[in-house]
Amino acid sequence: MKNKLHFNTTLGEKANLAFSALQKEKETIGYYTLPEQDISSVLAYCETIPATVESIAIIGIGGSSLGAKAVYEFLQSVENLSRKLYFFESTDPINIKSLLSKINVEKTHFLVISKSGTTVETFAIYKYILSLQPNPAFYTFITDPDSALEKYAQSIKAQILHLPDNVGGRFSVLSVVGLVPLALCRIDIKALLSGASNIKNSFFEHGYLHDTLLKKALFYAKNHAQYNINCLFAYSESLKYFCEWYVQLWGESLGKKQRSSAFHVGLTPIGLIGPKDQHSFLQLIMEGTRDKSVTFIQIEDFEDNVKIPNTTLSHLESLDTLNGLPFSKLINMQCNSVIEALLEEENIPLDTIVIPKIDAQYIGSLIFYYELLTSLVGKLIDVNTYDQPGVEAAKIILKKKLAKT
Amino acid sequence: MKNKLHFNTTLGEKANLAFSALQKEKETIGYYTLPEQDISSVLAYCETIPATVESIAIIGIGGSSLGAKAVYEFLQSVENLSRKLYFFESTDPINIKSLLSKINVEKTHFLVISKSGTTVETFAIYKYILSLQPNPAFYTFITDPDSALEKYAQSIKAQILHLPDNVGGRFSVLSVVGLVPLALCRIDIKALLSGASNIKNSFFEHGYLHDTLLKKALFYAKNHAQYNINCLFAYSESLKYFCEWYVQLWGESLGKKQRSSAFHVGLTPIGLIGPKDQHSFLQLIMEGTRDKSVTFIQIEDFEDNVKIPNTTLSHLESLDTLNGLPFSKLINMQCNSVIEALLEEENIPLDTIVIPKIDAQYIGSLIFYYELLTSLVGKLIDVNTYDQPGVEAAKIILKKKLAKT
Repeated sequence: MKNKLHFNTTLGEKANLAFSALQKEKETIGYYTLPEQDISSVLAYCETIPATVESIAIIGIGGSSLGAKAVYEFLQSVENLSRKLYFFESTDPINIKSLLSKINVEKTHFLVISKSGTTVETFAIYKYILSLQPNPAFYTFITDPDSALEKYAQSIKAQILHLPDNVGGRFSVLSVVGLVPLALCRIDIKALLSGASNIKNSFFEHGYLHDTLLKKALFYAKNHAQYNINCLFAYSESLKYFCEWYVQLWGESLGKKQRSSAFHVGLTPIGLIGPKDQHSFLQLIMEGTRDKSVTFIQIEDFEDNVKIPNTTLSHLESLDTLNGLPFSKLINMQCNSVIEALLEEENIPLDTIVIPKIDAQYIGSLIFYYELLTSLVGKLIDVNTYDQPGVEAAKIILKKKLAKT
Repeated sequence: MKNKLHFNTTLGEKANLAFSALQKEKETIGYYTLPEQDISSVLAYCETIPATVESIAIIGIGGSSLGAKAVYEFLQSVENLSRKLYFFESTDPINIKSLLSKINVEKTHFLVISKSGTTVETFAIYKYILSLQPNPAFYTFITDPDSALEKYAQSIKAQILHLPDNVGGRFSVLSVVGLVPLALCRIDIKALLSGASNIKNSFFEHGYLHDTLLKKALFYAKNHAQYNINCLFAYSESLKYFCEWYVQLWGESLGKKQRSSAFHVGLTPIGLIGPKDQHSFLQLIMEGTRDKSVTFIQIEDFEDNVKIPNTTLSHLESLDTLNGLPFSKLINMQCNSVIEALLEEENIPLDTIVIPKIDAQYIGSLIFYYELLTSLVGKLIDVNTYDQPGVEAAKIILKKKLAKT
């Protein structure tokens, strides 16, 4: 994985302090230790799920589903996965029915994932699915130790897996929350973790990413009043759900009241997919308000040789320049053209990330890269990166409404 | 359709001028006349497509696909549509192969849509599909009169449909660009247009939406330096692609150099889906920088009676408040709880749109509502709403790169 910044900033005392803060945080915040975890218990658990199970369904929302979805959707286009993964993450009745029409509840294993153990959406859906499949053997529960959900799962003698200590939902993809569903589909979770580990080591052991990550975080933090929007422009449809994962990670971690001032701060994440969004959002980046930074993600080799045929269309001979070109080359030429066009403009800070190909290792790298970047920016803009107090108010209002019905 | 603003602004001379400008613009900008068009030729065209055709595939990008996709995805969950609609809108090779694996090219009719007739992505994909299905009878071309594409289509004796005059891609969903694929799937395009017509009349004939639309546009324009981000928070998975359509419409129309000053201006659109994004983006709205306005879209009646069963889970008795509740009621309670929580905060301008149910008429209304709002805001922030000069630079660079290969 390569990362090149097309803007500059000078590292100094602030960067040193942020780096030290992360080194210290590593001792208490759980996600930092995930790349080196022992996965034997996850793999042993997977062996307990019968081979007759064709589909895995996650009943969970937000951090309980977005990470696994990002990895699964990235890899499922190129890998021959043994099982399909489905996501029950909305109380939209039409969505629930549509998902149920795609699975056979006799051949599906359900993973009910709720850190707190009382997520309203998750239990509304679980209760409904339980009415269709009442056998506890078809369910595994992933929750915090000693939660009410764990006690319930014990009472029905279902399998239970625990979240590790101090791993928040949006930082949990490399814990059992993501690893279990992915391993059940035979995704190479060892490679996933080794990709994450590479980034972690490169950053903490002063490898090639150390300065780059610090410079990027410092630039974003210093200029966050001007560049309050961060666009992630990924040139592959397979990264669509990675963008959704990034939006949650970035938005929910950084949209906060500042610790020191209680001011409202935060950088707004936007996920874009190229070349599609060249025909949608690009105009706004090129000519709109100078409030956006842009990160491009490219896949160097799609390992696919589909070529545009050598066809000449009468009256459209100008398009013969496309002939013989592999689509994988065209999509990267499109990306490079947009990058060059943006570099001609002023005040659009941009950087590029290139991963060699679509595989488990590189999505692991991308995930850990963004987790570290989020932690750094959070530190530098002085917020608590790991809580989400702003979502409680609506939950309390909902509980009152429910109590009244 | 109801629209309630929870912020206020006083209408005055500026609003009058904007309204007059739109009344004048109506004479030249094509999209305003689409609700009243005669659809008999579209319906007659549809009869020429054999009943053996099971799928319709659009080869097009941006304005050529997003509108039909928004309507189709909104309705396909509830209506029993006669054909499936697919969208070839990326040069991502894996995406192209994945789409091709879903269709039978002998039972698919392809709509090649390109206003200019020379869109690179569209022709790269068309050339490839042509190598799999060389029979011109399987293709219809939608383009501007006298384009090179029209001449090509004539040369192979394929069917041709024309875009109406002065209808830009992102405003074209109610023209043949959207109506043809939708009608081929037996979507009620008459109802779609009548929904649009209702909004048009209400606005131009000083009906219930007249003041509301003007106030909203005026507020957005006056405060666009502070509130540079507009969130559309829709509480139904079926509105996911409507959000994508809105992002293109809003971003590409309003992200411009100002006519008078050449300053970079523009409001950034963000599409969100509830309740999922309560667990992702909501924290940033609640506690982050006060740079966002939010519009909620709710569906009053999902016409679906799936209920949460009357199940008590031991240790989770607190969740019994959900028992017996229809999911359609729960999702709207969630939406209302978030609205109430946001109204407690300061400096988050919000408004709500409620549509009675999922049908063609109401998506037509939503489309025209957003088209009018975009035209009004564009006028008030002094940009050319209908061009997109910023996307040309990357196209020129790509052409040079292609010429070199």
